[in-house]
Amino acid sequence: MEDNAIMTFDIQTPSLATAQRSLGPGNPTYPLLPAQLSGCPKTSSETMQFPLEVAYDYASATDVSFARGTHWQDWQAILPPRHPRATMPVGGTPLVDVSSVAPPRFREQKVFIKDESRNPTWSHKDRLNTFTISAALYEGATTIIVASSGNHGISAAAMASRAGLDCIVLTMPEVSPVVRDMILGYGAYPVFLPADARWPAMRALKELPGTYPVSNLTPVHTGHPWGPEGYKTMAYEILADLDGATPAAVVVPTGYGEMLYGIYKGFNEARLLGRIDRIPQLVSVEPAARGPLHHALRANTPATTVEAGPTIQSGTAVTVNGYRAVIAIRDSNGIPLLVTDDAARAAHAVLARQGLWQEYSSSAAFAALDDIMAFDADGPVVVIGCSTGLKEPAEPRPAAATKPDLASLRHYLKTEFGFDI
Amino acid sequence: MEDNAIMTFDIQTPSLATAQRSLGPGNPTYPLLPAQLSGCPKTSSETMQFPLEVAYDYASATDVSFARGTHWQDWQAILPPRHPRATMPVGGTPLVDVSSVAPPRFREQKVFIKDESRNPTWSHKDRLNTFTISAALYEGATTIIVASSGNHGISAAAMASRAGLDCIVLTMPEVSPVVRDMILGYGAYPVFLPADARWPAMRALKELPGTYPVSNLTPVHTGHPWGPEGYKTMAYEILADLDGATPAAVVVPTGYGEMLYGIYKGFNEARLLGRIDRIPQLVSVEPAARGPLHHALRANTPATTVEAGPTIQSGTAVTVNGYRAVIAIRDSNGIPLLVTDDAARAAHAVLARQGLWQEYSSSAAFAALDDIMAFDADGPVVVIGCSTGLKEPAEPRPAAATKPDLASLRHYLKTEFGFDI
Repeated sequence: MEDNAIMTFDIQTPSLATAQRSLGPGNPTYPLLPAQLSGCPKTSSETMQFPLEVAYDYASATDVSFARGTHWQDWQAILPPRHPRATMPVGGTPLVDVSSVAPPRFREQKVFIKDESRNPTWSHKDRLNTFTISAALYEGATTIIVASSGNHGISAAAMASRAGLDCIVLTMPEVSPVVRDMILGYGAYPVFLPADARWPAMRALKELPGTYPVSNLTPVHTGHPWGPEGYKTMAYEILADLDGATPAAVVVPTGYGEMLYGIYKGFNEARLLGRIDRIPQLVSVEPAARGPLHHALRANTPATTVEAGPTIQSGTAVTVNGYRAVIAIRDSNGIPLLVTDDAARAAHAVLARQGLWQEYSSSAAFAALDDIMAFDADGPVVVIGCSTGLKEPAEPRPAAATKPDLASLRHYLKTEFGFDI
Repeated sequence: MEDNAIMTFDIQTPSLATAQRSLGPGNPTYPLLPAQLSGCPKTSSETMQFPLEVAYDYASATDVSFARGTHWQDWQAILPPRHPRATMPVGGTPLVDVSSVAPPRFREQKVFIKDESRNPTWSHKDRLNTFTISAALYEGATTIIVASSGNHGISAAAMASRAGLDCIVLTMPEVSPVVRDMILGYGAYPVFLPADARWPAMRALKELPGTYPVSNLTPVHTGHPWGPEGYKTMAYEILADLDGATPAAVVVPTGYGEMLYGIYKGFNEARLLGRIDRIPQLVSVEPAARGPLHHALRANTPATTVEAGPTIQSGTAVTVNGYRAVIAIRDSNGIPLLVTDDAARAAHAVLARQGLWQEYSSSAAFAALDDIMAFDADGPVVVIGCSTGLKEPAEPRPAAATKPDLASLRHYLKTEFGFDI
């Protein structure tokens, strides 16, 4: 982008968005665009980078309602402007009742999975990309750049292509074949680089004319300021679906915490607007082998870096947290939890028998309920199910379970029904 | 089932369903349950089996509306009773505008993909199984049986498990690993049998106490009478989303034609109720290598059998049609089309660049527009996108396209931007 300071943006939407607001000390503000893609310039240092969020003229948002039947169309005033070329229908995902398999102490207040696998590319990331792609379009970008080997890259590839943008996905040689095929199929350009070459490549690419990064550029995660605005629609949808009830808690698989913060912000806005009188407790769920947010909160620091311990929870397998997540947990009297892969695996099986085939990171979020005795308030518990398990490689299964045949059917019928065929 | 004739069913819903009505000559009727699982006993012969449908007291359905914002809850009167244990939220899938890549002659009237991949198991089959599982529950079944190596088996496994039913999936040794893993993961019991052993096994299994087939049992396809009732919600959703406009046509990937008939029936009911004044033309799309419906209609016979020609359109790769599909095409002044795999492949790529990663059978439906010059009426065209492409094995891709790396990125940047990194 050349001379961003004097760029003007042709935005025609009913959005009441006014500015980018830093989450760093003093909360300095910046114009709504260009997006501050490397965190807050005024408050960040070499060791700590602070993210930004979108601020709104909430006083004018008198008509916004989260009543049953409301949807994105009704919330435009408190969403970023959506570019006319960002046309993919996103969200509107249902709450699926899983109370019967939740820990008994929570069954009466109801436990739901919010099934984000029902998005266009079958993950929550489509919400984020709706607004990062919008920002890119307003800023005149021609080529999206994203570093990802999973849902984020898949979603960015699809949404960019649909909006008529090129897309380069910086990924790893060992990316799963299904992710590779989708990146290619959606018309994006995957580049296979070792992990330590991805960030230099990203920084080089972003200097090219027309390129626009939609994933993070800073050592401590900051991300795109408009991204969490997509996630906050999850809070609004939950309020609409619960028709007036405020959840006791929302349990969120947490990597960099953009979704965690978005959901927190959505509820907080509903409270600011007087539509609810408290916000739910946010529960962050990270893999036990990593968990930078958990460690940052314990150490009372804005961010920590952890070792890249092995985990099957690929959707949340990060080594550094973002500051947004710290705020979401701190300001909601939230609960930062770690979950082992074994617990995630067991929960995956439990959810599958409820008809929900989720990523392990989301199964982990359901498993986290086992470690919570009670929440501060009454009300339903919502666990975020981020993505279809179809994109994750199946783990090896015992041979006996994978090859039942007519002989074992006979055995089954004999033992279950006393029947010979 | 013992002595079905005197079974009573404890049904407590606002459904106005009254009977099963045969589609065979004279349209004899039967009680709503037990479901006639082997077609109409009175009109079928050894060479031709006629399916049944659900009849309603339409005269009492005065309150039913398909206005914008209406959904399943509003259509209960003209749906079969939904069992209280059939709780999975299904449907509500969006229309995605693909006019910009449709043949130019259709762009002004708008072309949409109805994205059925946003269902619980990422295919349209969840609609069918909502009501087949409901019927099974009302009839006191304990074990669902289904013959499938794809979406139907996956969906039945998930929906049965959620409803507390056992499920046996008769499938093939060469079933794809992802389908096998999902069947197992959802808690169903897959049995791997050669194709010619599946039907004898199905017929043996259905004699066991408590078992309940949700897939077809007859040489000419008849299927479960309640199945298409799930699909007809697609017609209602289309009317609600188009807010008063009636589509010119609905283009439907067609195997046995249960979905085709369900969509036809939904529009026809809306016409009977006076909510629309014509029904859209139904377009059936079958793989060029097979296409029993196409051949039956050409030969003016209720059903034909074709050779099992090779095709990548696995979702519609059947060798015999059902009579329902004949009615849907005949009574809508419909258009039966065949589409080659090459055309399906090309359309898959076009749709992917619109952010839609569909099965080949659904890409074929979009490709079919190329063969249509005009429809009888004005109005939007809706193409049914049945299922995520994620469950289909990727086809081999050229090595050059699968392994771009830093060298090719450099080349790309050099040629596209004149930039050296």
